[in-house]
Amino acid sequence: MGKLVECVPNFSEGQRPEVIAAIVNEVKNVPGVSLLNVNSDASHNRTVVTFVGEPQAAKQAAFKACAKAAELIDLEQHKGEHPRIGATDVIPFIPVSDITMEECVELANELGREIGEKLNIPVYMYEAAAKTPARVKLPDVRKGEYEGLKTAIATPERKPDYGPARMPSAGATVVGARQFLIAYNINLSTSDVSIAKKIATSIREAKGGYKYCRAMGVMIEDRNMAQVTINMVDYTGTPLHRVFETVKSEAARYGVNVIGSEIVGMVPLQALIDTADFYLRFEGFDRKQVLEENLR
Amino acid sequence: MGKLVECVPNFSEGQRPEVIAAIVNEVKNVPGVSLLNVNSDASHNRTVVTFVGEPQAAKQAAFKACAKAAELIDLEQHKGEHPRIGATDVIPFIPVSDITMEECVELANELGREIGEKLNIPVYMYEAAAKTPARVKLPDVRKGEYEGLKTAIATPERKPDYGPARMPSAGATVVGARQFLIAYNINLSTSDVSIAKKIATSIREAKGGYKYCRAMGVMIEDRNMAQVTINMVDYTGTPLHRVFETVKSEAARYGVNVIGSEIVGMVPLQALIDTADFYLRFEGFDRKQVLEENLR
Repeated sequence: MGKLVECVPNFSEGQRPEVIAAIVNEVKNVPGVSLLNVNSDASHNRTVVTFVGEPQAAKQAAFKACAKAAELIDLEQHKGEHPRIGATDVIPFIPVSDITMEECVELANELGREIGEKLNIPVYMYEAAAKTPARVKLPDVRKGEYEGLKTAIATPERKPDYGPARMPSAGATVVGARQFLIAYNINLSTSDVSIAKKIATSIREAKGGYKYCRAMGVMIEDRNMAQVTINMVDYTGTPLHRVFETVKSEAARYGVNVIGSEIVGMVPLQALIDTADFYLRFEGFDRKQVLEENLR
Repeated sequence: MGKLVECVPNFSEGQRPEVIAAIVNEVKNVPGVSLLNVNSDASHNRTVVTFVGEPQAAKQAAFKACAKAAELIDLEQHKGEHPRIGATDVIPFIPVSDITMEECVELANELGREIGEKLNIPVYMYEAAAKTPARVKLPDVRKGEYEGLKTAIATPERKPDYGPARMPSAGATVVGARQFLIAYNINLSTSDVSIAKKIATSIREAKGGYKYCRAMGVMIEDRNMAQVTINMVDYTGTPLHRVFETVKSEAARYGVNVIGSEIVGMVPLQALIDTADFYLRFEGFDRKQVLEENLR
């Protein structure tokens, strides 16, 4: 198979089905793009669209959806629980196969420039595509939301990376590149949530744990079971098996066992290959040895 | 992705490149089929062709290749080290994804009937498609080879399952369905091959080990290392991880470690998913959660 990226644009509309449908249709109608998921939340008043495709096709789909959102969504009228600065609030590209993060950054910049120049929408580049450290994290870029950014955009520190330094009714858009996020839960043989919280502390970056690991301890009431719930924000830097083994080892400290783990949503094939590679101690395994990899 | 089978026909020609090319071209020219490998051995005077495809396309490719081989290969003139009864000696179908063994047996029967009726070639069904226990194993079906079968074919016990009970110059063909075979080696931290041989004995079916495991202990001279070399003939019945863990445990008995393992050639994605599932103790993992599975 050829180069493949995932794209997960977030739109500031979660209530009007006809608007959501019009935006999603722009994505669906681009050849070479596969729509994977549409998740609309009414109280957030926000829709997350997930699709994959060949890089140029994915860029085109993101641009067309962004243009449609700018046409149909007026930030002056928008209310919702989730922070946002634009009709198309954020567009991350994620490398899936045969493509580097650097190529995704380049693709994000091409899209940012097009949105700025052709749609006259201010664009900020974030995460791996950020042009200054102050713009790496999404909350920093989104500070003040649409309402606050309307005036702040004229200041030098909030000057957009592409497009005009003034806000249209479609707001501004954040574009960038990041690794695939794996939502991963590890279930414990205890109903004592404090143990799950202690284990979460031991693995999460903020407390000295793994760099690409966000974790919390929570109680799963209907199973009367404590769980370590994890966002693996870069499985190539912090692999699944290492987090699993550390949780197992930390749990043993409390006389607790790992009874199972769950992948929530999607996982890239490479993360499963890496897992098999670790446990079976593969020597020189090549992804092309996976039979199905030869068929795409 | 849709239903997918692998097909690995063996042809009794390993010396004349133009004949091999003509047969391989019949496979390549069928839409919906991907050619994966062609392996010709001159001393065996035999070529193994590996391809995958949608079931009906794979059947058509196998039929056309068989017809071409019958046209170009004369068993009266054929000599080689490898036992054989026909120009197309054997055609196994292997389930790859979204297809059951029963469906592969049905597909094999459709192909066997076509070869018998349209090409007037005697056909024997084997392995999962065998119609009697005496025809399950390939060596039993191939007993006496082409030369012996010329007369034996007239006896009731050698009556073909499809086609005429007399031998054309293209010989007879064995058609069937079997599981994917994974060639798997486990490397040991010792140069004592007797330990590899003892471990091989502990895991192979013939000596009371795993039902779908064939194994030998061998010496890898250039690494001065003993190895357990394994054919996993049905990874759905005897999974990779179980054999790996048993070899690790048996090796420890001799104070020896497993230093690595190797997949030789292809492995179905499902075998790697099953490995990750075991070690990470997945709860309810669905193959459709693999991102790439949504793109085919």
